Amino acid sequence: MKTLFKDVVYLDGFMDRAERGDLLVSGGVIEKAKDVPAEAAEGAEIINCKGNKALLPGFVNSHTHAAMTLLRGLGEERPLKEWLEKRIWPVEACLTSEDIAVGTASAILEMAKTGTTCFADMYFEMQDVGRVALEAGMRCGLSRGIIGENEASLVDGLTLQEHFAKEDLVTVQLAPHAPYTVPFDFFKRVAKEASLRGIRLHTHFLEAPWERKQLKDELGLDPVSFLERSGILEAPGAILAHCVWLEPKEAARLANTAVTIAHNPASNLKLGSGIAPLGRFLETGASVSLGTDGAASNNRLDMWSEMRLAALLGKGAEQDPLCCRAAEVLRMATFEGAKALGFEKCGRIKEGWEADLVLVDLDQPQYIGWEPATLCHFVVYAGSAADVLGTMVSGKWVYKDGMYPSMDGPEVIRKAREARKGLRLRARSRG
Amino acid sequence: MKTLFKDVVYLDGFMDRAERGDLLVSGGVIEKAKDVPAEAAEGAEIINCKGNKALLPGFVNSHTHAAMTLLRGLGEERPLKEWLEKRIWPVEACLTSEDIAVGTASAILEMAKTGTTCFADMYFEMQDVGRVALEAGMRCGLSRGIIGENEASLVDGLTLQEHFAKEDLVTVQLAPHAPYTVPFDFFKRVAKEASLRGIRLHTHFLEAPWERKQLKDELGLDPVSFLERSGILEAPGAILAHCVWLEPKEAARLANTAVTIAHNPASNLKLGSGIAPLGRFLETGASVSLGTDGAASNNRLDMWSEMRLAALLGKGAEQDPLCCRAAEVLRMATFEGAKALGFEKCGRIKEGWEADLVLVDLDQPQYIGWEPATLCHFVVYAGSAADVLGTMVSGKWVYKDGMYPSMDGPEVIRKAREARKGLRLRARSRG
Repeated sequence: MKTLFKDVVYLDGFMDRAERGDLLVSGGVIEKAKDVPAEAAEGAEIINCKGNKALLPGFVNSHTHAAMTLLRGLGEERPLKEWLEKRIWPVEACLTSEDIAVGTASAILEMAKTGTTCFADMYFEMQDVGRVALEAGMRCGLSRGIIGENEASLVDGLTLQEHFAKEDLVTVQLAPHAPYTVPFDFFKRVAKEASLRGIRLHTHFLEAPWERKQLKDELGLDPVSFLERSGILEAPGAILAHCVWLEPKEAARLANTAVTIAHNPASNLKLGSGIAPLGRFLETGASVSLGTDGAASNNRLDMWSEMRLAALLGKGAEQDPLCCRAAEVLRMATFEGAKALGFEKCGRIKEGWEADLVLVDLDQPQYIGWEPATLCHFVVYAGSAADVLGTMVSGKWVYKDGMYPSMDGPEVIRKAREARKGLRLRARSRG
Repeated sequence: MKTLFKDVVYLDGFMDRAERGDLLVSGGVIEKAKDVPAEAAEGAEIINCKGNKALLPGFVNSHTHAAMTLLRGLGEERPLKEWLEKRIWPVEACLTSEDIAVGTASAILEMAKTGTTCFADMYFEMQDVGRVALEAGMRCGLSRGIIGENEASLVDGLTLQEHFAKEDLVTVQLAPHAPYTVPFDFFKRVAKEASLRGIRLHTHFLEAPWERKQLKDELGLDPVSFLERSGILEAPGAILAHCVWLEPKEAARLANTAVTIAHNPASNLKLGSGIAPLGRFLETGASVSLGTDGAASNNRLDMWSEMRLAALLGKGAEQDPLCCRAAEVLRMATFEGAKALGFEKCGRIKEGWEADLVLVDLDQPQYIGWEPATLCHFVVYAGSAADVLGTMVSGKWVYKDGMYPSMDGPEVIRKAREARKGLRLRARSRG
């Protein structure tokens, strides 16, 4: 299957200027960029872009809990503890594997429509999540969340790794939920398994302000010592979601390690967790990616919103209009997330790289005045998910012109509505 | 002209729960809500909403500079002073009245498509701005920005008031640009004219951190004393845009006055101005509205983005998930802005109120699970401009299903592109 984008504008987070030319996708990769010989494009689907449509690398949502779409809007504007204990956990306890599958499918509708081509999912019933993602043609990193000293969940995670080992679109991570929900010895055991087997980690880290103090009080460790002693730094990679309360000088210690900070600005604001010092993190050379977190605390799964928020919030928090530049944020939202999940040659627009792409309509008032050197600013500051014309993963459209080639959109929405209703009824009858 | 919304869900910022029923618009107002007798609706355009489309009050963008759409993206990621002096002001100096007209028309395309029905515009060549708005059918508050001791600009503002005195869709404000750009004595003279003639004011106030100090150093006044001594508090109303550095206890002094704080969170972040304490402002009982500021510093003219940002940022800045509630923010984005501009019976969904409305598509995955008591949360936290099906001002559609009944969208975009090109060329040849 080949696709030829004729006269398209293309840009990634490493390019100083957008390029304009033809771009040929073949065998799931970007085969040729800029000048495509006519014979190479023979038999290709042709998309005429007329210099007025842009390709970006597909967005990588590097921290989410997709099936939480079914929990969106439950118990808004309540304190975190009450929200979790009274609204989220009792409902989560009622989730069936069928719910998880339909909640994930509904999340994929949202993500594909808004240009996301890959998501890092930490939840449970992860074989179902992976199955649904593969049916839809989405790339993903899967991890079974481990809470407590839970050997069964660890085994689940390892089984998951074996189950999807041969799938090009899937990587698996091990996911001790957080330092405060997993006993330190068991955290170390999980990290050691990860190192031994060459599996990456995915965990929550320093989301709330009290977590630093608890590390100190209970383990006598500062955050960097925790990362060292737990074995996280020895794993082949680790996503640390949130890091709101990590200090910039601590982040500097993560430069030249395999650790990625997954920044989740909307969720951090909405739960009142605080504002991570993104501008300072980016100065340190540490890897920083971008994620939405689950739909219950965002409440969107839209990487455009998240890019714009990251770029604006970073500037406002530091009172520095020069930091958190558009190109840096685009790189966070694409390449850095893919790298964190172990997807190679993914997240850039270069020959030989994966054809995970978003097609964007520039023929709109908010793009008037874009130039090759400034397109990135228009995308991050003025763009939105409404500008997406199509989303392609490994050379196949997962969303195009309002349709989902491999999913029945209205049927997914119908089933998700039913699942939500059933969930509310079961949660009420239990509670 | 009548429009009947059959089986629609409707909500404003004062309603605890969304209502469901029919809603009849006639003669520019909401004639009947909930139960509409068949005979009353005779001859009406019928919109079948099937309980799956929602009406909100149209958004009121209470601080913007519409024609700055032509300056969007110029000199991004530069320090404020360099941005203004090297990139914005030299280009603004080249703007013709034709540029202002087409830049405003382009802004109206964006605003109408994203659900805005009214905008408060401070700029120049304001008769052209008003003409373009009226041709498009948009409601607006117009003010001619006054910089320096500029009698001619004040006369412009007063002439503007006379020119549009009979237009129901237009109010006029007097706009001394800011305390730091207008000499204090002339500021007082403008405020006095406003009081004498019953005209409201529109000004920038405490956007940047140094403004407080300058008030003290140059005039020996704290912010509240400035508002008292300048005569602002005696005017029939005043929009104070930004107020990033106003303290909550100072905002409390504005409760029970005719002053409205226009919150502009995106622009304040992007320029590195800082984060206004919205959660604390809302506790004081002061009137607070919402605005985008100009497209050069936002870079969108999208009140959905601004609502979501206001609600999230307020929570994160205060580390309080309970503040800046969705209903409060929806009220800021609608009723409070209309009130600040002197539009009565505007910004709510009630019988006898203006039919300034946004029609929203709830048949999408991000709205799964909404209930009458939680629709407001779905709108503010999960909604976006992409959900807008139509926008109506005073009973007439200004945007519907991708079309602009009173504007030629593609022609406006073509002209705006040309104007932008011409502007760049003229600015270069001068500079």
